[in-house]
Amino acid sequence: MSRFFSSRCAGLPAYVPGEQPQDQPYIKLNTNESPYPPSPGVLAAVTAQAEKLCLYPDPDAGALRAALARAYGVEPENVFLSNGSDDILNFAFLAFGEAGVLAPAVTYGFYPVYAALHHLDYRTAAVNGDFSLNPEEYHGAGRMVVLANPNAQTGIALGLEAVEGIVRANPGHVVLVDEAYVDFGAQSAVELTKRYDNLLVVQTFSKSRSMAGARLGFAVGDRGLVDDLRRIQYATNPYNLNRMTQAAALAALAEQSYYDENCRRIQETRAYTRNALEALGFTCTDSLANFLLASSPELPGGQLYRRLKERGILVRHFSDERLEDWVRITIGTRNQMEALAAAVADLLAIAREEAAYAAR
Amino acid sequence: MSRFFSSRCAGLPAYVPGEQPQDQPYIKLNTNESPYPPSPGVLAAVTAQAEKLCLYPDPDAGALRAALARAYGVEPENVFLSNGSDDILNFAFLAFGEAGVLAPAVTYGFYPVYAALHHLDYRTAAVNGDFSLNPEEYHGAGRMVVLANPNAQTGIALGLEAVEGIVRANPGHVVLVDEAYVDFGAQSAVELTKRYDNLLVVQTFSKSRSMAGARLGFAVGDRGLVDDLRRIQYATNPYNLNRMTQAAALAALAEQSYYDENCRRIQETRAYTRNALEALGFTCTDSLANFLLASSPELPGGQLYRRLKERGILVRHFSDERLEDWVRITIGTRNQMEALAAAVADLLAIAREEAAYAAR
Repeated sequence: MSRFFSSRCAGLPAYVPGEQPQDQPYIKLNTNESPYPPSPGVLAAVTAQAEKLCLYPDPDAGALRAALARAYGVEPENVFLSNGSDDILNFAFLAFGEAGVLAPAVTYGFYPVYAALHHLDYRTAAVNGDFSLNPEEYHGAGRMVVLANPNAQTGIALGLEAVEGIVRANPGHVVLVDEAYVDFGAQSAVELTKRYDNLLVVQTFSKSRSMAGARLGFAVGDRGLVDDLRRIQYATNPYNLNRMTQAAALAALAEQSYYDENCRRIQETRAYTRNALEALGFTCTDSLANFLLASSPELPGGQLYRRLKERGILVRHFSDERLEDWVRITIGTRNQMEALAAAVADLLAIAREEAAYAAR
Repeated sequence: MSRFFSSRCAGLPAYVPGEQPQDQPYIKLNTNESPYPPSPGVLAAVTAQAEKLCLYPDPDAGALRAALARAYGVEPENVFLSNGSDDILNFAFLAFGEAGVLAPAVTYGFYPVYAALHHLDYRTAAVNGDFSLNPEEYHGAGRMVVLANPNAQTGIALGLEAVEGIVRANPGHVVLVDEAYVDFGAQSAVELTKRYDNLLVVQTFSKSRSMAGARLGFAVGDRGLVDDLRRIQYATNPYNLNRMTQAAALAALAEQSYYDENCRRIQETRAYTRNALEALGFTCTDSLANFLLASSPELPGGQLYRRLKERGILVRHFSDERLEDWVRITIGTRNQMEALAAAVADLLAIAREEAAYAAR
């Protein structure tokens, strides 16, 4: 920290770079990326923009907003776009979090960071032993409610009725539903935004649309909420969506069936992986996301993470004590998950031998 | 504004979309873009990334930071990258503006917006009648000093000694030098960052490197300042630089001589344009940027802007009363500027006829 740093920022966590080991080619199951490349039209769309990079992008992203509105059955005025859904979450915390924020105790780790950045009171509601939420605990919160649905880290989803109940029970505050993982089997609340002016649904092109590298998030909500977010965007970074990303996303929307098929395959592979892990004695959360949260009584989370890494497979282990027995495993291709299952079976056999040896 | 909008944000200016008329193909001299496309390697670099968009970008942009550090003779730890220089300015105001901000009365219009966003006291120093600055007025400011050099809207540059004097005379506060337009003939203060821990130099790929559409800004400064900016970035949007932009910029740095030649051509065309306008009775500021600020005693700024637009040429007119007699004209290709000069000559002839008619 320099001697010039604002006291307002001094409480921000220092940055710890994410794990990007370069020592060998890994099977990368640690950041919930799609194992499938973007659809063919994306390549042509991106290439066509390279020549035009000397010109500013459309700050309104008019063509893309219109296409997204059509795809989701809303009006362009109900769609907000930004440079990744993290950017939108940040704006939304600033815009709507003044009375404080309520979120589940286990969820996306960035929520408390945004609260700290904007000096918002951040409160959590406990999760059950199986990581499920109690929707009533979010009724009458008296502050902004933030729910990842399916939830980050666990993949557990609330049904649409539970979400609507929370939205209805907080008429004076915004309910932000972060649907980064919704396309892998959960129910979206987008339709509810037409009936509730306090509901903001945030989605991303990073997961189901294979574009983590392009950085595009979007939000759907009442025009009032969208206007507020735009006001913040235009006071910070009007040209926040580059030309290539806008073109890539527009091309992807025109090839939606490709992405639908990928989501179907990932759900199929998720079921395969869950069965394989459960056959090996694992417990898995009931994930509707493109990852599993899994725990073995024989292999503690940290140990499993390290031993898989030694074998060239990256999964995610969290320092949060509620998650220390668990690993989060992104659903890759069928081949990748078969390799994972084989490695886990092997590690378990070794662990059992070690345990038998120690017990002699 | 929705009923949920934070009182902290209520003072933000409502967004007014920029002018992007679609009714005819314009000669676009209104947003200081480069008239030249990116260098050939950029196309290949961008195309190669499209297939990899399913993977997150490197949040550290390690390869690009290293290449920029080499290009500017500093260490990677002295380089901060973000999604356009506006993004960096926003972070820097938050990070370093706690004691308030001092900027010239005529400069980039976004500075007071960032100050409003972060509730910083914003003070301006008057400019002279010819729009030049008095460097001493920025000595001992007791707050962050923000200077665009060359200055926005006027193109007038301070020499390196004047900049160093301001940096030296504000040891307790950050001096931010916004060098968006520096590559068209002005002196950069990058070298001074090695000797002064309170100097932050901000540049962009939008102008001299033909990448307004790719969104890339960078800052060079003491490691302490860079670490502070990174801390804010990682608390808001760690993956803020998409893969395609990182790859495009890396390719551009490998073809620097192409951009140097473009800058030389733009300076040549600027001299041609200035001569042509002065021959028509215009006054021009002594611009070292890729634009001219020009004023005719016979054609008020607003009228000149509107009449040029009718003829398919877009220039910029500002509502600021100090600039109302002026138009800002981006330097395009020689052909574009010849078309501008011809149109202006024609409009002047008409204005003279009108004046003669009115005087009868």
